[in-house]
Amino acid sequence: MAQFMDVHTNMPGVTAEALLEAHRADLAIQDEESVDFKSAWGDPVTGHVFCLSEGPDKDAIQRIHERAGHPYDEIHEITVTA
Amino acid sequence: MAQFMDVHTNMPGVTAEALLEAHRADLAIQDEESVDFKSAWGDPVTGHVFCLSEGPDKDAIQRIHERAGHPYDEIHEITVTA
Repeated sequence: MAQFMDVHTNMPGVTAEALLEAHRADLAIQDEESVDFKSAWGDPVTGHVFCLSEGPDKDAIQRIHERAGHPYDEIHEITVTA
Repeated sequence: MAQFMDVHTNMPGVTAEALLEAHRADLAIQDEESVDFKSAWGDPVTGHVFCLSEGPDKDAIQRIHERAGHPYDEIHEITVTA
């Protein structure tokens, strides 16, 4: 499995409840694509949300996010960490 | 303390060794600004690096990153998580 950081750039005003609901929508179906969403971090002021996940490839991450109603705007495959 | 995700957008080809060295340079001086860098995730292909930290404000994060030689290009204050 690979690790990814995807970015949503247009979620201004996102609340804790809305982010949790979105995350749970991903978790509910992620097994169907062998994806594992780890964490989500949001800034309601800039409207950015960052999601860390593991999965087979970028398209699998996007399929889950799209079906849950929040496709990512960009994604990065994380191959170095510190 | 507040939580932040800062983004470096121009680190193509970053290696595991280079990211670890950069992270350690932050850790070595972060106490001077009451900053705590938690994790860094990098994609050498897109050249993006994401740093999660805690600190008093965005400027304190930037001062540490600048002194360590890698100022961020953007930063987001994380107030919602899931």
